Amino acid sequence: MAAVHPFDPLSPREIAKAAEIVRGAFDGHHLNFRVITLQEPPKQQMIAFLEKERLREAQTSRPPRAARVQVTVPSTSRSYELVELLVDLDSTKLIRQEHLAGKHPYIDSAYMQAVEKACRENARVQAEIQKLKLPAGASVVIEPWAYATDGMKDMSERTTMCWFYMRLFDHPDANFYAYPLDLCAEVSEKLEVTQIYHLPSSEKESIRGHARPYDRGKVHSSELSEYHPDLRPPPRTTTKPYQVIQPEGPSFQITGNLLSWEKWTMRVGFNYREGLTLHDIRYEDRSLFYRLSLSEMFVPYGDPRSPYPRKAAFDLGNDGAGLNANNLRLGCDCLGLIKYFDGWHNTASGEPLKLPNVVCCHEQDDGILWKHTNHRTQNAVVTRSRILVLQTIITVSNYEYIFAFHFGQDASIHYEVRATGILSTCPINTNDKVGYGTIVAPGVLAPYHQHLFSLRIDPAIDGNENSLQVEESHPIPNVHNPFGVGYTTKSKIITEEGGHDLDFATNRTFKIVNENKVNPITGTPVGFKLFPCYSQMLLAHPQSYHSKRSEFGSHAIWVTRYQDDELFPAGRHTMQSLGGEGIKSMIEQRKEDPDGNSNVRNEDIVVWHTFGSTHNPRIEDWPVMPSEKMVVGLKPINFFTGNPSLDVAVSSQEKNRSVLVEDAPACKSVACSRL
Amino acid sequence: MAAVHPFDPLSPREIAKAAEIVRGAFDGHHLNFRVITLQEPPKQQMIAFLEKERLREAQTSRPPRAARVQVTVPSTSRSYELVELLVDLDSTKLIRQEHLAGKHPYIDSAYMQAVEKACRENARVQAEIQKLKLPAGASVVIEPWAYATDGMKDMSERTTMCWFYMRLFDHPDANFYAYPLDLCAEVSEKLEVTQIYHLPSSEKESIRGHARPYDRGKVHSSELSEYHPDLRPPPRTTTKPYQVIQPEGPSFQITGNLLSWEKWTMRVGFNYREGLTLHDIRYEDRSLFYRLSLSEMFVPYGDPRSPYPRKAAFDLGNDGAGLNANNLRLGCDCLGLIKYFDGWHNTASGEPLKLPNVVCCHEQDDGILWKHTNHRTQNAVVTRSRILVLQTIITVSNYEYIFAFHFGQDASIHYEVRATGILSTCPINTNDKVGYGTIVAPGVLAPYHQHLFSLRIDPAIDGNENSLQVEESHPIPNVHNPFGVGYTTKSKIITEEGGHDLDFATNRTFKIVNENKVNPITGTPVGFKLFPCYSQMLLAHPQSYHSKRSEFGSHAIWVTRYQDDELFPAGRHTMQSLGGEGIKSMIEQRKEDPDGNSNVRNEDIVVWHTFGSTHNPRIEDWPVMPSEKMVVGLKPINFFTGNPSLDVAVSSQEKNRSVLVEDAPACKSVACSRL
Repeated sequence: MAAVHPFDPLSPREIAKAAEIVRGAFDGHHLNFRVITLQEPPKQQMIAFLEKERLREAQTSRPPRAARVQVTVPSTSRSYELVELLVDLDSTKLIRQEHLAGKHPYIDSAYMQAVEKACRENARVQAEIQKLKLPAGASVVIEPWAYATDGMKDMSERTTMCWFYMRLFDHPDANFYAYPLDLCAEVSEKLEVTQIYHLPSSEKESIRGHARPYDRGKVHSSELSEYHPDLRPPPRTTTKPYQVIQPEGPSFQITGNLLSWEKWTMRVGFNYREGLTLHDIRYEDRSLFYRLSLSEMFVPYGDPRSPYPRKAAFDLGNDGAGLNANNLRLGCDCLGLIKYFDGWHNTASGEPLKLPNVVCCHEQDDGILWKHTNHRTQNAVVTRSRILVLQTIITVSNYEYIFAFHFGQDASIHYEVRATGILSTCPINTNDKVGYGTIVAPGVLAPYHQHLFSLRIDPAIDGNENSLQVEESHPIPNVHNPFGVGYTTKSKIITEEGGHDLDFATNRTFKIVNENKVNPITGTPVGFKLFPCYSQMLLAHPQSYHSKRSEFGSHAIWVTRYQDDELFPAGRHTMQSLGGEGIKSMIEQRKEDPDGNSNVRNEDIVVWHTFGSTHNPRIEDWPVMPSEKMVVGLKPINFFTGNPSLDVAVSSQEKNRSVLVEDAPACKSVACSRL
Repeated sequence: MAAVHPFDPLSPREIAKAAEIVRGAFDGHHLNFRVITLQEPPKQQMIAFLEKERLREAQTSRPPRAARVQVTVPSTSRSYELVELLVDLDSTKLIRQEHLAGKHPYIDSAYMQAVEKACRENARVQAEIQKLKLPAGASVVIEPWAYATDGMKDMSERTTMCWFYMRLFDHPDANFYAYPLDLCAEVSEKLEVTQIYHLPSSEKESIRGHARPYDRGKVHSSELSEYHPDLRPPPRTTTKPYQVIQPEGPSFQITGNLLSWEKWTMRVGFNYREGLTLHDIRYEDRSLFYRLSLSEMFVPYGDPRSPYPRKAAFDLGNDGAGLNANNLRLGCDCLGLIKYFDGWHNTASGEPLKLPNVVCCHEQDDGILWKHTNHRTQNAVVTRSRILVLQTIITVSNYEYIFAFHFGQDASIHYEVRATGILSTCPINTNDKVGYGTIVAPGVLAPYHQHLFSLRIDPAIDGNENSLQVEESHPIPNVHNPFGVGYTTKSKIITEEGGHDLDFATNRTFKIVNENKVNPITGTPVGFKLFPCYSQMLLAHPQSYHSKRSEFGSHAIWVTRYQDDELFPAGRHTMQSLGGEGIKSMIEQRKEDPDGNSNVRNEDIVVWHTFGSTHNPRIEDWPVMPSEKMVVGLKPINFFTGNPSLDVAVSSQEKNRSVLVEDAPACKSVACSRL
């Protein structure tokens, strides 16, 4: 096992140690440990450390190991208070302690279970359930959701919205989302049911004061809505096995969290909130990125009718991509040779908690990397593209996200997001329709919603002073363009922090360049180019809470000056947030600060890319949706002196062992029988 | 072997037969056979035929087998005349004969070789080569290019532009594109060198009257510019073998050109111009597309200086995607079990000519198809995505394109284009720069250019009467949207033929729908949705010949009424075309025709998608560029009653045989030695 590296996540021992130090500071008090995670060292210290590492020089001083801890403590004024502490694990000292008055921690699953229980046992709720006159044998499932700010509640206490569903089949994995009930309850911090809603159905209808018995007409076949094999007819048998063999083992090498593959090296990190993070990413030992991470995602629903505006989830800030990461299983989530990474979190009492197999690392074949056939000699030279995949999959109640970084032999990086899982549903009467949802099964409305992701790119292109260059392609004015065919590029360097939009019509391109390093052949600054995912931005009104709370959703590209701990474009605390703590506000505060500096030219910058999908469901997304892919790319542009994958060995049958299909197998299919 | 199907390409026997019939019509004359290809039957006949086929009814009458033949015949007025003939192969009769006065056939490689020879042997050319004072041992390579119309030449005769390069190393596969010479010759139909150009270097410079000796300073190491293994240092050895095993054989079945896989059936076609074509594409025997094909591509260069405006290629119309299709090799171009399809063309004398292995068919694993983990039971259900790939690769002198249709178990189709190969280069003096090209090696300019593709989609969504629906997502007006979070979709059906643009900012979506078939659950018309490739359209001035000749390049989406033989959005004859024969003109002609009909609502329509890339080269694209991917998708939208891939068997280790990487291999890499 390798020595601890400053980027390594906290070890179980360090987690226990941090908890112990914090307990000491609160002698006697009952503490609920929400977070015990690595406090990454200040970048200035890390730059020095990494440079020594690169030069293979002995480290005279190592950045201290530090933990960021969040606990909730009993409060006299209200139910609890959130306290954040910084702990120096070397000196075992408390560095900082901050009482976050009015802030809420991320969702507490234990608390959510208490909410569910309280709601279920509430007499009024029970009475309402009776009025529904559910089919015999059906059971009620309650889904508690964090309350999305709509301006109707006092924010100093947590509010939870409970959505009701029916489990029709007596099977633990029956799809209750297929039977949404038109009942909704609001539960207070103190676990009181403060309001009960009868949900609207048609566009004209608003919430009602009275119950509506469950319409038996909505009961439908398991064929239409069940996904679990136990509840499905036998699967198709036409798909023959497909296996990946790597007889000489993987091409990657892993020591601790240091991963090297082909000409890449990087460090794998993981935390409860962002999940997978990547650090100090290099190619041929040249620095490319200091840190890559998914920094936030926001899923607002488009149904305007109360109480639906309270459905809007910050899946990182409220739920945590790390905490909700799947335990990946061999042979299910990937093919070939798989290396898994575990994550570590903490229990409420501060003990280390293992999150097994939360990240997997494996290789994939990606088709042809490059090819040329000399038509004079008919000699073809072809190479195959091998990619390294670092993947993590999260489940946020009904929905799944598959996040994967793909590294290429050509020094490209692609970040792929796949959206799958089950749509969040709500009830609709069988003869109603609305303009902001799709009916996916009888009585089941899948409301329109958006998925907005923020990929945080902390570049270090051949050094830490970088700039963001915007380039467009435009026709050359006629006077210098007699045949009208000429075009040229116009580019400018962005000098101030801010947000920018995409424009494919002008081939607008965003490059992260190092103006201090000029390519010896092209004579232009070395750089990496962003291949964005063209997406609609947030549809909510600029004055709405959704907009104020998810500032990153208003522009596709943001550029900021690097600040330690400035990792979250919707703010550090998103639970029931009121807005004004996101990337736009951070930028404005620095602009207003007389001593502030908003210059981003030739500085240590961070580039944030907002992308996602406006997801107006298809019925084909039901009951579990086929993966919807979104891809963002980063590729070198005039960074090297040629194709960095030129030295990949030529593709050969000797290595690849493909098999010729000589004749068609005996033909059994209906289609063939036509002949 | 199956009976001949109306969509089957001509067999060798049919090609020979067609030639024989045509020879009879021109007794005595010397004929140069350029084309002998299938004349696809009129759609009305095919619809009846396919419906009987679907119902497994006996065919009372089969559409006649017909061949479209192009020959050039000696002409008194000019060097040759192009004649197109339609031949009925059943009745062995000539149906139609058309003299295409002033039209040129696609590039004749035999003629191009004659051009190259004549140019090389020309005394003035030899004298100019002498003036270049090339390094000892260097040889001159001449690349003849079809002349792109610039309005400076009489179009009744072919003009060819010869570009000069130097082969520095004595190896047949040495990369001469690394040594462009500033010499260019114009060759006439009669193989006379009519003009010699000394190419410009800086932006200020135009073509010169005098030669410039070759600058020895441009000679550079093979490291920088050679791609052939013979001329390279040994390749990287870090990439371990990766093999695909399919122990139970492929999941597809092929009989003749009928392909069935999972729930898909389709017929594979191939011709000299479009290359791979797909016909009668069905899922669960429901009709989806009558025909899918790449219909044209245009590659205009952005250098405004004469004679560079003459560089602009129609790679289908001028060269032919079928004719230039690679002979694919086992173990090189694909992994796993591969079925190859041959193509057939004809020799100049009308004999059948085999084009071996021009299309390959194989399966690929495509990661996770869908997944859900029930957080209450922790039970995960995950399926893997298998795709069927139909791939063809073409070489157009310096450049390669990899075209692949991907079929998914979820009824999705993706059309993937990969651009690779060698950039077309021209000379530049070592201290010069221009605003429309990248210097990729000493003295080597890679000019900016565009790649514009047109994917022709001939839909038959549950029948042949289809409509194109445009849908956008917009916020709901505040009066009905008190919390400002609501949004809805606005959609309209396009009623008239025409061109349309993309707009991701409004999530503008194009759906091909069948208004006569309503989804029983969603209550909306069944349809397929286009996932476009967002691309900049043609940059050339609307009045330029480039624009007039590539009308499809001005809009991303075109919709037209189906017409037999209307397959080419830049017109049937693109060689030295003057424009006015493309999709825009076809539409205008019908609009102007008093008896014309331009209605495209609930009609037999064709949808054309223009996409591609504005390719401003990176030095990383040199000397052979890593594949640049472009993807277009087609997915069902409210076509089925749920996820069509719901019945795919759950992913299991028993089937997939993945292997756990327990410990890191012994660590040898530089990176690891840091520890």
